[in-house]
Amino acid sequence: MDFITLLGLIAGILTTLAYLPQAIKTWQSKSADDISWSMLIILSVGIVLWLVYGVSIRNIPLIVANVVTFFLTSIILVLKIRYKNVV
Amino acid sequence: MDFITLLGLIAGILTTLAYLPQAIKTWQSKSADDISWSMLIILSVGIVLWLVYGVSIRNIPLIVANVVTFFLTSIILVLKIRYKNVV
Repeated sequence: MDFITLLGLIAGILTTLAYLPQAIKTWQSKSADDISWSMLIILSVGIVLWLVYGVSIRNIPLIVANVVTFFLTSIILVLKIRYKNVV
Repeated sequence: MDFITLLGLIAGILTTLAYLPQAIKTWQSKSADDISWSMLIILSVGIVLWLVYGVSIRNIPLIVANVVTFFLTSIILVLKIRYKNVV
């Protein structure tokens, strides 16, 4: 694997796993008020489209990255719904 | 432009602009406690790598998407620093 491909791979891993600390923080703090509903929803729709796109062009890294990202952003969305009325 | 390329373009636009409502919400609410530092930092580093990768392979959509995303996530990061001690 050449350096540039490796760069793309690391970029993909970082922008995918970046949501893991957010999911953990939201789970621990039981608070998600500062997180924007629109961001989560638009991001999730965008990720699903990336997934469909990745499947269409049979691009494994794109599929794997977006499955993981979708899983993490869904957790944050579910936690935000769950903690909505927690005062 | 065929349907699949259009799909990728829309996915890119959504996952780029998703951060705009978050930047606006953080600006208006003057509060970013629920947003994870690690997410913002890891995401920003990942976006910079995507940018370098995009430049390396001369991919305009990748460059444009990540310049916009980096701009938006930097705003959220700066606002989070600024509102850190706001009670």
